[in-house]
Amino acid sequence: MATLTVADLAARLGGVCEGDATPIIRGVAGIRDAQPGEVAFVANLRYAADVATTRASAVIVATAWDRPSQAALIRVENPDAAFAQAALMFAPPPVERIPGVHPTAVVAPDAVLGADVTIGPQVVVEPGARIGDRSVLTAQVYVGHDVSIGADCLLYPHVSIRERCRVGDRVILHNGTVIGSDGFGYTVDDKGVRTKIPQIGIVVIGDDAELGANVTVDRARFGKTVIGNGVKVDNLVQIAHNVVIGDHAVLVAQVGVAGSSTIGPHVVLAGQVGVSGHLEIGAGAIVGAQSGISKSVAPGAMMFGTPAIPMDRAKRIHAYMMRLPDMKDQLADLLRRVAEIETRMPPKA
Amino acid sequence: MATLTVADLAARLGGVCEGDATPIIRGVAGIRDAQPGEVAFVANLRYAADVATTRASAVIVATAWDRPSQAALIRVENPDAAFAQAALMFAPPPVERIPGVHPTAVVAPDAVLGADVTIGPQVVVEPGARIGDRSVLTAQVYVGHDVSIGADCLLYPHVSIRERCRVGDRVILHNGTVIGSDGFGYTVDDKGVRTKIPQIGIVVIGDDAELGANVTVDRARFGKTVIGNGVKVDNLVQIAHNVVIGDHAVLVAQVGVAGSSTIGPHVVLAGQVGVSGHLEIGAGAIVGAQSGISKSVAPGAMMFGTPAIPMDRAKRIHAYMMRLPDMKDQLADLLRRVAEIETRMPPKA
Amino acid sequence: MATLTVADLAARLGGVCEGDATPIIRGVAGIRDAQPGEVAFVANLRYAADVATTRASAVIVATAWDRPSQAALIRVENPDAAFAQAALMFAPPPVERIPGVHPTAVVAPDAVLGADVTIGPQVVVEPGARIGDRSVLTAQVYVGHDVSIGADCLLYPHVSIRERCRVGDRVILHNGTVIGSDGFGYTVDDKGVRTKIPQIGIVVIGDDAELGANVTVDRARFGKTVIGNGVKVDNLVQIAHNVVIGDHAVLVAQVGVAGSSTIGPHVVLAGQVGVSGHLEIGAGAIVGAQSGISKSVAPGAMMFGTPAIPMDRAKRIHAYMMRLPDMKDQLADLLRRVAEIETRMPPKA
Repeated sequence: MATLTVADLAARLGGVCEGDATPIIRGVAGIRDAQPGEVAFVANLRYAADVATTRASAVIVATAWDRPSQAALIRVENPDAAFAQAALMFAPPPVERIPGVHPTAVVAPDAVLGADVTIGPQVVVEPGARIGDRSVLTAQVYVGHDVSIGADCLLYPHVSIRERCRVGDRVILHNGTVIGSDGFGYTVDDKGVRTKIPQIGIVVIGDDAELGANVTVDRARFGKTVIGNGVKVDNLVQIAHNVVIGDHAVLVAQVGVAGSSTIGPHVVLAGQVGVSGHLEIGAGAIVGAQSGISKSVAPGAMMFGTPAIPMDRAKRIHAYMMRLPDMKDQLADLLRRVAEIETRMPPKA
Repeated sequence: MATLTVADLAARLGGVCEGDATPIIRGVAGIRDAQPGEVAFVANLRYAADVATTRASAVIVATAWDRPSQAALIRVENPDAAFAQAALMFAPPPVERIPGVHPTAVVAPDAVLGADVTIGPQVVVEPGARIGDRSVLTAQVYVGHDVSIGADCLLYPHVSIRERCRVGDRVILHNGTVIGSDGFGYTVDDKGVRTKIPQIGIVVIGDDAELGANVTVDRARFGKTVIGNGVKVDNLVQIAHNVVIGDHAVLVAQVGVAGSSTIGPHVVLAGQVGVSGHLEIGAGAIVGAQSGISKSVAPGAMMFGTPAIPMDRAKRIHAYMMRLPDMKDQLADLLRRVAEIETRMPPKA
Repeated sequence: MATLTVADLAARLGGVCEGDATPIIRGVAGIRDAQPGEVAFVANLRYAADVATTRASAVIVATAWDRPSQAALIRVENPDAAFAQAALMFAPPPVERIPGVHPTAVVAPDAVLGADVTIGPQVVVEPGARIGDRSVLTAQVYVGHDVSIGADCLLYPHVSIRERCRVGDRVILHNGTVIGSDGFGYTVDDKGVRTKIPQIGIVVIGDDAELGANVTVDRARFGKTVIGNGVKVDNLVQIAHNVVIGDHAVLVAQVGVAGSSTIGPHVVLAGQVGVSGHLEIGAGAIVGAQSGISKSVAPGAMMFGTPAIPMDRAKRIHAYMMRLPDMKDQLADLLRRVAEIETRMPPKA
């Protein structure tokens, strides 16, 4: 953990310092919680007013910042990125991983382990599995038969990967996440009794993907369920069989994507969104929280609601809904006035 | 893995072949991804156009199929079921389970294991538990005190079953699923402080049920939470204490059912549906995705929305909502016209 | 397990007995399932009619109860609490925990274990961790580096707590729950490629908190994610980085709270509610099931809908929505009548 002055920190971040540059900085904190000796940042204008009252010794702000500040300012182009950099300087040392196989791990004799792999306590690696160089299976992880995991991966405790699934390089899987469980597929007879359709496909995860905790990704009925390169999946997300998630897409917590849907590259699905089966969400589309997608979505579209419609239209419709009581009153008023007019009209010829 | 011609395959599926019956089939694939040497199928008309362009050597279709095809056709009564059968012919061999107790498993001396049971690495079986013939506990499974599991069950890694719960025959529990966690029940004092109500009941799961990954089923406050025979539960579903799920019901991913509700037999709850507590969903009812059920539902009803109303009414109301801007315009127009008429009416007598 | 008469039970519960006080009571059951020899209760009027037909030997009711009963009545002030007390009297003995470290557990030599701690089979306790007196880690639990757990805690199988997180006294964590997974935070470059922002903070859980099964609580980006004292969290809930949950708040199943939001003390979020990031939900507010909170909420407010509005207004708006077809008809009728009037008006001067 570093110890440096506000001036030192500004220099390291490539920023311009303003105000008292002499205090020693010992850590980072949120703008509201920060204490003397800590650096905070403001990227979100929600917190702008807090800069005037913060106890932080310095605040990282955008170059054009023009609000009053209690603390020294460090002006940078991207406060968010600069703060991330600062946070890392003061971070406690990361957990040390010592390569090797823990004596309580059960690793099949024919599993292939790359250089400097770490297999922690009570990990199970089944026959035919391959683990790439420097990958870390922390503890209590399950790696199924013939699974392939790339290099520099990090699997947290209680991750499960079922047979034959393939994971790329630099993938992070958080605790309790399940890769390759059976897809939800049955035939139904005329008495409504279901028979399982074998789910013989796999899951393929690209490079640099990160999946949160307790996520579930089902294996394909046949062929593969795909998580592209650089995809980021938050906690408790459900990805059904034969879904394809395009490169660099983002699925926020508790999203569910039903079978055989394709999520284009760079799509963002906000929290708790549901996507029905057999749909295509075009590249770069954005779907607002809790929306339900029941039709395919064009590339770049912004959607909201259940069933989802274009965001601006959804907002307009919502505004009208809020005015429904007024409309009802106007309607009642009109009905009364028109009836009155009718009584005063001369009888029809 | 079999190797056979289109003609052979048609014969095995009891179908009628049309077109070039000579190519060797080596596997199955989706209609869009299929390559020469693979067989695809079309049950969903969404993919009908793909039959004209597929590279598959054969496509399994319904008897009455009348669209153009690039590939040989195999006509069958139920393409979905026939394809499932074909997929199985070409499936990689399933993971082999070798009966016996892995040396790293911790099995209580008084636990009763049936014939040919497989207890994999790092499984824990607590005192008083009983495991039926041929059941497989793959790895890292937890079976609590006095739990009873039937014959021919398959429990994937990181499944937990807490004390005294009972599981029927031929049940499949996917990774990370929790059976018998405490129900969410508290008394509240006048300061808003909650005290835990002991949850002393159990969970009972019928025969042929399948529960997906990371599902949670709470034990009853007293008595039992019930999952009926043949029930299929998808990933990340929550089933609260004292809920009863009728035989052959289907709960799609991320559904939540609150305490003491009864879901009738053959009910289908689509993805992300929520059901409030103490309700009854009648047999065979169907609830659309993301709906919120706040009142009991009649048998056979189709419901949608939050709060849910009959599906056809929900669709009608939704159509009117989409026309709200027009209604508002018509209303404004009427107000103007009526005011104009009023100025031209003779004064009241 | 006790055996006592209806009269004995009434006395133990401080209640007044009415009807046949002589039957032996052997257990508790729901009002509809109860058999002779069992005691049931009614707190919820939904079940009032069942008291007339129950087969229970006794029913616990409120002092003012005035409906017909088939069974003996035990009148008490709080039937719910009294029944909880009765249920406990007849509960099977709880699972016995024998303090000590199971030989298959992997406990770092420098971990500090309090008095009478139970470390079950295949638990992993990493270096620097501290476990308070009498706490129980049942089986297959993971406790990360430098984690601190208080006294009298109960951690069920497959719980994971990542490095440096802190858990108070008397905390219960159900199966599969993850504490301290990385927050979902990335910087994005101009090609839409995301880079992970280190999540170097922790999670702090207060005393007497209980978290259900397969819950996920992310560690703070920096600083801490906080779960207050006495907080009750149901299954499959997602709590993002830097969230603060106030004392005695209740989060029902499948709720999701996005990053940096503050949930005030005594707030109740019903099932499947979503809360956007950077919001404040005031103390004692109540949010109805499946609602989506997109703005901060005042203390004590009752909210409903997506986006959520005050509950009574949401109900009114919903009632108007249900009447939209009528409004549309009235509007069409008015348009016709006004057009008719216009044709009969004398031409404008």
